[in-house]
This record gives sequence, structure tokens and C-alpha cells, in this order.
Amino acid sequence: MKKKLLYGQVGASLGAFIGSVHRVAASFDGLARLAAGCFSRNPESNRETGDFYGVDPNRVYGSIREMAEAEGAREDGIDFVVITTPNNAHYEAARAFLENGIHVLCEKPLCFEVEEALELKRLAAERGLLFCVNYSYSGNVLAKEARHLIRSGVIGEVINVNAEYLQEYLVDDVGAGDQAMVKLSSWRKDPDVAGISNCVGDIGSHIEHTVAYMTGLKLKRVAALMDRFGQPLDLNANILVEFENGAHGVYSCSQVCVGHMNGLAVRIFGTLGAIEWVQENPNVLYVTKKGQPTQIYNRGMGYISEEAAAFSRIPSGHPEGLFVAFANIYKAFIGAVLKTENGEPLTEADLDFPDLDAGINGVKFIHACVESGNRDAAWVEI
Amino acid sequence: MKKKLLYGQVGASLGAFIGSVHRVAASFDGLARLAAGCFSRNPESNRETGDFYGVDPNRVYGSIREMAEAEGAREDGIDFVVITTPNNAHYEAARAFLENGIHVLCEKPLCFEVEEALELKRLAAERGLLFCVNYSYSGNVLAKEARHLIRSGVIGEVINVNAEYLQEYLVDDVGAGDQAMVKLSSWRKDPDVAGISNCVGDIGSHIEHTVAYMTGLKLKRVAALMDRFGQPLDLNANILVEFENGAHGVYSCSQVCVGHMNGLAVRIFGTLGAIEWVQENPNVLYVTKKGQPTQIYNRGMGYISEEAAAFSRIPSGHPEGLFVAFANIYKAFIGAVLKTENGEPLTEADLDFPDLDAGINGVKFIHACVESGNRDAAWVEI
Amino acid sequence: MKKKLLYGQVGASLGAFIGSVHRVAASFDGLARLAAGCFSRNPESNRETGDFYGVDPNRVYGSIREMAEAEGAREDGIDFVVITTPNNAHYEAARAFLENGIHVLCEKPLCFEVEEALELKRLAAERGLLFCVNYSYSGNVLAKEARHLIRSGVIGEVINVNAEYLQEYLVDDVGAGDQAMVKLSSWRKDPDVAGISNCVGDIGSHIEHTVAYMTGLKLKRVAALMDRFGQPLDLNANILVEFENGAHGVYSCSQVCVGHMNGLAVRIFGTLGAIEWVQENPNVLYVTKKGQPTQIYNRGMGYISEEAAAFSRIPSGHPEGLFVAFANIYKAFIGAVLKTENGEPLTEADLDFPDLDAGINGVKFIHACVESGNRDAAWVEI
Amino acid sequence: MKKKLLYGQVGASLGAFIGSVHRVAASFDGLARLAAGCFSRNPESNRETGDFYGVDPNRVYGSIREMAEAEGAREDGIDFVVITTPNNAHYEAARAFLENGIHVLCEKPLCFEVEEALELKRLAAERGLLFCVNYSYSGNVLAKEARHLIRSGVIGEVINVNAEYLQEYLVDDVGAGDQAMVKLSSWRKDPDVAGISNCVGDIGSHIEHTVAYMTGLKLKRVAALMDRFGQPLDLNANILVEFENGAHGVYSCSQVCVGHMNGLAVRIFGTLGAIEWVQENPNVLYVTKKGQPTQIYNRGMGYISEEAAAFSRIPSGHPEGLFVAFANIYKAFIGAVLKTENGEPLTEADLDFPDLDAGINGVKFIHACVESGNRDAAWVEI
Repeated sequence: MKKKLLYGQVGASLGAFIGSVHRVAASFDGLARLAAGCFSRNPESNRETGDFYGVDPNRVYGSIREMAEAEGAREDGIDFVVITTPNNAHYEAARAFLENGIHVLCEKPLCFEVEEALELKRLAAERGLLFCVNYSYSGNVLAKEARHLIRSGVIGEVINVNAEYLQEYLVDDVGAGDQAMVKLSSWRKDPDVAGISNCVGDIGSHIEHTVAYMTGLKLKRVAALMDRFGQPLDLNANILVEFENGAHGVYSCSQVCVGHMNGLAVRIFGTLGAIEWVQENPNVLYVTKKGQPTQIYNRGMGYISEEAAAFSRIPSGHPEGLFVAFANIYKAFIGAVLKTENGEPLTEADLDFPDLDAGINGVKFIHACVESGNRDAAWVEI
Repeated sequence: MKKKLLYGQVGASLGAFIGSVHRVAASFDGLARLAAGCFSRNPESNRETGDFYGVDPNRVYGSIREMAEAEGAREDGIDFVVITTPNNAHYEAARAFLENGIHVLCEKPLCFEVEEALELKRLAAERGLLFCVNYSYSGNVLAKEARHLIRSGVIGEVINVNAEYLQEYLVDDVGAGDQAMVKLSSWRKDPDVAGISNCVGDIGSHIEHTVAYMTGLKLKRVAALMDRFGQPLDLNANILVEFENGAHGVYSCSQVCVGHMNGLAVRIFGTLGAIEWVQENPNVLYVTKKGQPTQIYNRGMGYISEEAAAFSRIPSGHPEGLFVAFANIYKAFIGAVLKTENGEPLTEADLDFPDLDAGINGVKFIHACVESGNRDAAWVEI
Repeated sequence: MKKKLLYGQVGASLGAFIGSVHRVAASFDGLARLAAGCFSRNPESNRETGDFYGVDPNRVYGSIREMAEAEGAREDGIDFVVITTPNNAHYEAARAFLENGIHVLCEKPLCFEVEEALELKRLAAERGLLFCVNYSYSGNVLAKEARHLIRSGVIGEVINVNAEYLQEYLVDDVGAGDQAMVKLSSWRKDPDVAGISNCVGDIGSHIEHTVAYMTGLKLKRVAALMDRFGQPLDLNANILVEFENGAHGVYSCSQVCVGHMNGLAVRIFGTLGAIEWVQENPNVLYVTKKGQPTQIYNRGMGYISEEAAAFSRIPSGHPEGLFVAFANIYKAFIGAVLKTENGEPLTEADLDFPDLDAGINGVKFIHACVESGNRDAAWVEI
Repeated sequence: MKKKLLYGQVGASLGAFIGSVHRVAASFDGLARLAAGCFSRNPESNRETGDFYGVDPNRVYGSIREMAEAEGAREDGIDFVVITTPNNAHYEAARAFLENGIHVLCEKPLCFEVEEALELKRLAAERGLLFCVNYSYSGNVLAKEARHLIRSGVIGEVINVNAEYLQEYLVDDVGAGDQAMVKLSSWRKDPDVAGISNCVGDIGSHIEHTVAYMTGLKLKRVAALMDRFGQPLDLNANILVEFENGAHGVYSCSQVCVGHMNGLAVRIFGTLGAIEWVQENPNVLYVTKKGQPTQIYNRGMGYISEEAAAFSRIPSGHPEGLFVAFANIYKAFIGAVLKTENGEPLTEADLDFPDLDAGINGVKFIHACVESGNRDAAWVEI
């Protein structure tokens, strides 16, 4: 019976911001150890990274496929892999590990095409493998509490949604044409690497997932007004949405809104109440019941539901942030992999991490927005 | 040379909320005295109101037209009239006073039809009369400061707008059909009295005006997703907007968003900076320059521009609220009427109150939204 | 039977900030008319002010005593007087009107000496006259709601109080010696006019009253650490307090705290809950019950108690500010004067305005703080 | 030349909240590996913890002294030890490791007696060992930025300080006598384990250190009003403070203030500006220059000083919290230990972690407060 897991990393060389967050998150609970990697295409960086993290040099691989096959073949091979490459490598990497019997945790967006996403789902189901797409914000305790409250009927039926994710970091690209500045993650602006969308793909998809996670509602169609400001991909989008239950709403995402950093803010309005959650200060949740004062829920307090509190690590008033949100995704995923490896059945609670369906919905959302954007914000079915 | 003015009220019987706000606002600076009225269709209420405010009983009139003609004919007739009836009476009342040479301050929306609005403009111009449409929020000092900063180029060219006006007070009407509760101002839900729109007409129009006031931008077209939830008129709307300069944005207005009261919040994003102002706490303004910390402007401080500070009445840190916003609309309007009556020329600064063009734009906006709403949120030109 | 009142003003010449706030506030409900005044020692300013407000020139007086005697003798004399002179004139003025049978509303602090305050109380009681000391912040609806909640036992027994009133406007005086800048209200820095204290007298006294108003607790003793920074009177004070019920707390008031304008903030902690109210945004009140989420009370909502809601003038979400707080003091005082003049009995609710006891407590508090400050923050009994 | 370090833990058995935060923090940067421990007095818990973390069973010790001696004697002994026991064990543990040549990171408060603290300082100096006292909040990037700005003169000379640390978790103990509830960390209420103070010792000491860290000011004397509410140790304290530069201020700490969790809030007022920082949302810092709008500094932005930004791990808008604050203490301490072990000289920047002087000041502060509290809040020199 396994008590701990081994994992590998694809991407995440020394210095890669998101890769290092993953590494810290994976080790938070002491249940997974880094044992293999294909950290970089640059051999030296690859070797140095493996060395720094104490990975056996024989398990630092020059190519993803080589790693997948070798680790899949080892008796003591990794139990799961973490994929944090740029978007264009996600699909091939994920596929390679699934084909070799290895569970996968992959950064979002899952891949470029819906067909690819469905293929990954088919593969994972066929092999009985778990797959987590890292919509990290749903790892926050109060995002989970929002879901709990909405599921419990506290706000009644959802009738309107207002959500946004605003950033300022590309504002200098507006009208800059070819002179657009090269910023951190500038590959996001390159269609070959990022895919058909920059802004909606990178951050709009977080809005889509966070709302879906909290409400359980399915999107029916979108009307997306998108702005490229002279760049190859979108930098700004205002999107009307319609859900299958008939509710409407608006999603706004932007990389050109001065004064905003990672401003994911979600407001869900129902017939009986409303919920507001803001990622930049994730330790509070605003809950209002019709006609009553707004209540400020505080992570870590006794009134937080058991299912959300299960992910709370430190007392209320001690802020938890992005690292902990990631760690909570890992906590659920690692727990589920451990059970799976040990042949134990999984409950719904065990599966509280974003799965391939979340990934597939994300790819569909991006495609629908881009198509709508190309057609002057006409409605496009998801 | 006149130093003070006389005015009359149409509507505003004792107990009418908005009417009493107008009365207080008109008297704030001691420059106008209530001298006539047609306060109510109910003769007793009409008489009582006149009596309470010390109006000469001979100048308490049974009909609007009678009042307009009598006051227009008196040597000491009122200089201006304040119209605060339900929407459906605005046009006829305004017309009657203009025809009798009396300046008009009228609640918004100005009237039902664009043609009516244009007719009022024609009449006022012909007679050389001033006309104020009471988009009261633009009376706030920091709404004026926002306009000043945007005009001064502080945020560069506007590239995105995100504005909303959310309320919760009609949430019980959702799905209630004919049983919908009768609330304060329930005439707003009656098409015969309110016109073709409830939510967009009442509060969406404030978004439209506030953004136009601050930015000077003209709306080109709208795509409005509107919800009636089984009622005769709209209760909720999410609206994509396009301005003549090419900038996009979204306006959301709602009377079914639990947790919000009079939540007018305006965020203007430009190439160099951004501005945010929230009506419920109007004494602060958030100003961010690209790459810099957000600054919290405080009404009454020395760094506020002269043109905005001219409307600041008490020191910083002493909150000003709705009464003062109204009083500032009156301050500008009364000042302009005094100059006009005294034959003095008017400067642009003298005209810092919402005029007939603002009123006309409001009527056009409401019509375009309703048409778009009826056509599944198709784009409609303004 | 009187339906309306006449009143006079002492001080409040054109241009005096606080005087004009009083004039607007007195007229808010249309129940009192300005009929006499001694507005300024400067005859021209005195005359102009009377003229501007339409006061009969025969009732514009050259001296306070002349006004008190003449108005007291008239058949149609003023019912009450409003005193808004600098502090050093309060006592003589208040005394003159009381001696002539006229109710008094006086700015705070009531007077310089405790004996003077007691003498005014004796006089008022003897003549059956009402006396209001304008601790204006207690006019706010949510200050009243705080009082209601605490009285109702919502927070249990008070065990700790943390309150402050911070301003920045005199920071340039620190270390400036005789070169200290002359600011608005610079008479506050002159011991002959302001009395023995500047900062504690002007704003510390508001802390003292607001806490007393909300909690009903009596102060037992204070230990005041006061800073003059080289000026004749205090600019900064940190004060330990002990109440008669044994609870402790701290009051901080300052005119040298950069970033604060009129930052009166009161936090009352009890065995069952806590209340927080901040004057600069007076339309919300934070109420927390032990172990529960903090609730944001919103003025104007249905859950506000009847006794506080009686002072709410406009719907929730429309901010009320300083003018309305003043107007509410007047509403209660005018109501009580009307009843008194008409021989009607007064209920406790009728007396919801700060009275001579409040004024006396204020003078005692100032004296105790100054004495403590002079003795290195030793405890001084009130 | 060492590239990584080995460390041991004293305390921090599985399930101990603060111990697990230390373990995560120590591993954040991948530069230190847990190699030894004396995790619990309970042999089973001790063994299980070592086992869980993969510590060699031969290096899981039954007593602190045994561990110190054995590790001090090993060729590959630990480089530093982390002490997270209850307070009463700190001194003996720290002493044992210093005597065996091992660097120490110890939870605060450092120890019970000033003499003990001085003895530790003597020992560390004698052996050339580094010693970190874990005042963790100074690990926050914006606490460092506050220090940078104050040192740079941005707020001028400090003239007033207002700081607090409020919690609600012991409010049920008020008046409960022997029935006081046993809460998490209930040893804090036991004088034998916690020392002479509960509230001031646990959280008041964080105020003292945070202010000292940011301002560099030394406390001269305190006047502490302390409340035990019938319990053996203090639950609430309001403390007047005087600094050596003559500035005054007030510190409030409490475990009975409903609505507050870990409410450390620090406001430093100077002649030119002011700074405010609140631990519960540590990613923003409020900076106000005299007469200017308050600025909201955001961790991770380009305007943050180099010395503070060196500790920023993820982009602005992604919240960092308590784990990262701890990790930053470790980052500095581990860096300094590495340099020391490698014989490299240490710069001032290398020493940006709380040292024995901080620990000594903390012990002095606690003693002075308790003495003052016992003498009715008389002034006590530090």
C-alpha cells in the first residue's frame, strides 16, 4: 500500500515562475517527491534543474516522449506528471504520459482543439487514469465555500452572473504594432505557441471555470466583443453569456486595464441571495441574503462548511494565497491518485479538482469566444 | 438686476421622496425661493403641500398648463420650474413651461420619444431658455474631477469602459408573474407611466450619462441582453457598447442583484491610466497611472482641480451625499438662470449641468437598448 | 398651536463654513425659519448676511445681549437660537438667551469651565428650556443604530473600546514654533479663543460623546499622553480610558496624522459581539456577533431599527452625509421645541439629541485630559 | 563549498500547526533539507513524525540535549535547528544547540527572562553562530517596503504610532473563571508554559517588533493597561508608548475583540507622510504623502524597492500569505547561514531577519508591560 507518491515535471526549469509554484505546492503536504523531469529543451538548464532538486541524473530526460516511456516502464516509475510547458506542448505531452499509464496534472488551457481534448479524455478513461487541469483558483477554500453555499440553495436559483479578470500588464501593446513590448510570458502573444487566443485563453478561461465550479451551470452560448488593438491576438474582451438554465451574465477579461493585476472577481446573483469573491484577497467571501446585511465570511472560521474547511491549513486571519490554492489542487489530486493506486474507490469529495471535462469546457469556451469575436460579437453556441 | 430667483414645483407633494430632495437642494445656497406649485392631482394634497411650504394659495394650481400660463403671465412669475412627476408627464409639462417662457429643470428620463426630446430642444432654443435634465450623479464633486482628469489626458485615450448600476429591490418580482410585489415607485413597472423600459430607463440611463459626462465619448451602438423575468418591463440588462472612437465596454444594470442598493460604479480605462468612481461612497475617486500605485483622491483636498472644487461645500473627510449632488446641479443651473435673466453671457463653466442634449442621448440610449433586447441582443446603432 | 418655529443665529456670517451647514440643516424639514441674527461683529458683514437671508433688518442685532433681550421681549420672538461662534463666546451667549426664555442649540464644546456648564444647566432647568449641544455625529442614522444594538444587548457587556479621530491638517505645525501656518479655524490654536485644548477639545470631545452616546457608559478616569510639538495647545493625544463598569479602552485624536481627514472611527467590543462605525463613510455599520461573519449594515434597509430608521431620509445606497447628520440633530431638537412650546409632554425618543449633560461631560473630559497631559499621563478622575 | 543545508526540528510533530508552516517554509527554496528532529515528548508521535518526513531513525532523538550533542558531533550534522516548542522550552533548547555549534531559528518570544536572552546573545557571539527569532510578519515584502520607505525619509520624522493586533478567539474566557474554555494553544494561558504574559507575550510582541522593524525606533517606556478578566494571564492590553526620539503612540492587543482574527495593523505617522500596513491583507501598503492622495502600493509592481522586491516570489495580484512570510524569514536566514558556513562575509542586506537583539527587545517589552500593568499603568522604562 502506497503512502507517498513520486512525480515528474515537464517544463519548470529553474527560474520558471509557474513551475516553481507547482514544485512548492506539490511538496506542501509531504506526500509527493520529485523523481524525474524533462525540465527544459536546453540541455544545460535541464541538467542543472534536475541537479538542484536532487533528481537522479538518469531520470532527467532529453525529450518528453522518452521520459514518458522510460518512467512508464520503470518498476519505481513516477505516479504522476506535472506539465507546465507553454500551451502548444500540452497535448502531445499529456498524451504521451497517458499512453504510458501515468496520471497527469496539466496547466490550462488543456490544449488547442476540442478534438484533442476529447481524445485525452478517451485515453484517460481507457487506462483508468486521473487527469487534473490546473484551474488553480478553485483550490481556494472560499471558492469551495461559494460552491457549497450555492449548491445548498443559499442564493436560490442563479439569475445573473457578473465576472471579470482584469490585468494591466500589456497596456503598452495598445497601438504599438510590431513594437509591442516583450513582457514576461510573451509567448502568450504568439499564436503558434499560445493558440487562437491570448487574453480569453489565459484569463477568460479562469472566469469560465470559476463560475462553472461555483454554480455548476453550463454555458449555452456567448457573444464576445474582442479587441486586439493591432496585435495578433486578443488583449481585451467583453462577453455576454447565456447559461443553460436561461440565466444571463457578462464576463470581462483584459490585459490592458490599468490598476488591475490578477483581478479575478466573481459575483453570482440568485433569487434569494448573492455571492462575491475576489481572488486578490481570497480569504474573504461576501454573502448576502435578500434584504439582509452583507456578511463577510472569513476562511478558517467555524461556520465554514466541512467540505471547504477540509482545505483550510492555517487559522483564520492568517492569509492564504496562491501557493496554498495550488497546494489544495495538489492535495485533492494526490489524494485521489493515492487511492487509485491503492485500489480504493473514489468518492465525489475525492474528486474535488478540475478534471478533463473542465479542460474540455475551457477549450470550447475559447473557440466560441474567438468565433464570436470574428463575427462582430454574434451569438455562438458552446 | 436679479440676485435671487423664484421657482415652482410640478409634482413633489408632501411625502414624495425625490420631490423633497429637490426642495432641499434648491434652497441649499439661498438663491431660489419656492413661489408656486402644482404639487399633486389630489386637490387636498396639492393645497396642503402649498400651505406647508408657505406658497401663496393663489399660486397653487390645479393643472400644469394653468400654472405655466399664469406664471408666465405674472410680472413676478417664477423664473424656473422643477418637474418631478412620473415619466409620462414630463414632456407635456416641460413643453407647457417652455411655451410660457419659463426655464425648466426636469427629472430624467426626459421623455418617451426622441421626437419629443428634439421638439423640447427646438422650443428652448427658440425662446432662449435653459433646460436641465437631472442626471444628479454628475453633480458630485469627484464625478467632476473624473471628467477633469480625463479631459486633461491623465488616462490617455479611452480604450475600455466597465460600468454598472445594480440594485436588489425588485428581486422578489423574478418569476412572480402578476403577483409581483408593489414596491416604492411601482409606477416604474407600468409601461403606460414609465415608458418602454423600467431598469434601463431608470438606472441604465444614469450609467450612460455618467460615462458620457466623464469621458465626453459618444455611444455608437449597443447590444443589450435584457431580462424581464416574466414582468412587463425589463429588470436586468447586460449591454455591450461601442463608442465612436472605437472603444468598447460593458454596462450592467439590474434591479434584481441582491446586496446592491444604488450601486452605480464607473471604471474608465485608458492607454495611460484608469479611473474608478462609486456613487455609494462618492467622496473618494480611484486614479491609477500606468505602472503606478492606485491613488485615492479625497474630495475637498488641495489637489482637486479648481473646476471640481468649485462645487465642494465642506472640508475633506466630511461626507457629502445625494442631497449635495442635487444641490450642485441646482447651483450650476440657478447660476446660469441668474446670468441669463440678467443678460450676462454664459461661459462653458456656467453650463456644467446636464442639458437637453444629455436628455436626448438618454432617450436614444433607452430606445436602442430596448430594440436590441427585442432582437436577441443584436447591435443597434444609437 | 405652533406648527413651525422661528429661530435666530449667533455667528454664521456669509462664508462661515459651519454656520452655513447649520442654516441648511435647520431648513431641511421646512419647520423652522430664520428670523433674527447677530451674525458678525463686523457691522457690514452682519448687515449683508441678514440681508442675504431675508431677515428683517430690525432683527439683525449688533450685540448678542441686545438680540437676546429684544427677541425675548417680542411677541413673535425667535423660539430658539443657534450659537456657532468661536468657543470663548459660547457661555455668555447661551446664558443670555436662556435668561430671556429662548431655547438654545450651541456648538460644542459647550464652554470652558465645568462651573459654567453647570450654571447653564441650572438656568435651563429653572426656565424649562431645551438645550442642544451639537455633537453632530450622533445625528447619523447608523450611530443611532449602533446605540440601539448595544442597548438591545446584541454585543453583550462592553469590555473594550477603541476609538479615534484623526486629521492631518495641522501637520505642518509640528516643530514650526511661531512660524506655524495659519489654517482654517486657526482660532482653534489660540488658548484665549479655543480654551485649554485644541485637539482634544475640538475632536477628542467627539470621540468621548460618540462612545457615550452609543454605549451609555460613563467615563471614570483618563490617562492622556498629549503632544504640543512646540505649539501653545495640543495637536495629538493618545488617551487610556476607564469606564465606570470597569471596561478599558483607548482614544486617539490627532491633527497631525497624514492621510486622515475627519477620521472618527469607533469600535466597541462586548462579550457577545462588536460594532464598528466610521464617520467618513457613515452609511454602513459593521456588526459582528461572536464566532459569526461580520455583517455590513446599510442605512435605509428594512432591518434597521425603527428608532434609527426614523431619521433615515432617503433610500439605502443613496449616501447621506454631514448635512443630513446636522439635519437630524435639528429634526429632534425642533420636534422637541415644538412639543414644548405647544405644552405637549416629551418622551425619551423626543429627546434623542445631545443635551446639557452631554455638554457637561465634554467639558469635564477636556479638563481631565489636559490635567493628565500636564502630569505625564497620570490617571485623572472625571 | 556548501550549496544546501541540513536542518533539524525541535517540536513540530505531525499535526502541530506552526510546526508544519515552518517545514513548508524551510523547503520553499529547495536549499534546506530536514535531517534530524526531536519532534515530540511522546515517543510514538516523535517516531511517526520522523518517519513521515523521511528522517533517518537514528537522527530522531528522545531529548533536546541528546539531539544537540549528537548533531553537533556528527560530521554531517545539521547546520541549523528550528525550535517551535511552547515558550518555556525555548531557552534551554536554544542554549543546547548554540553550545554545540549549531545555528538557531527559534519561535518568539525568545525566552522568559532578559538575563536568559542576554546569555543566548553572549553564547552566539562567542561561537560565531547566527540566531533568528521568528517574528514572521517582518518577512512580508510590504513590511520590508514600509521599512525601506521610512528609512528613505519618505514620511519624514516619526511623530506618532498607532498599532494593534486584535483577535477574538478567547472572548468566551471573559468572566468564565475556572470554566474558561480550552482552545487551540491553550498552553498560552498557563503561566508555567507561556510565561508572565499571554496576550502581550503572544501578539503584543509582534506589534513591538513590527514597529521597530519598520521604523528603527527604540522604545523608551510604556504605560500598559492590562485586563485579565478573571484569568491567570492577560487577555487584553492598551499600551501608551514613548520612543527614544520623543514620539508617542499607542499599541492595542487583544484576544477578546470580536470580529478580529489576526488583526495586526500598523500605522506610522511622520512629519511628511504616513504608512499603513495590515497583516490580514499583506499584499497592499498604504502610503500617503502630506497633502497628497493615499497611494495603494501593490507587492510585485515595478515601483517596489529592490531590497523589498528581492523577497517577492510571484507577480503582483497573486496573493502571498503567511507561508510566504515564513519562507522569507527562512530565505534570509538560510542565505546567511550558507554564507557563514562557506566563510563568506555578511552584508547588512544578508542580515534582514529578526535577530537576538529583536528577541531581547521583545522580552524586555513583555516585562515592562506586565510590570506597568501591575502598577495601574504607571510608566515603566524599557
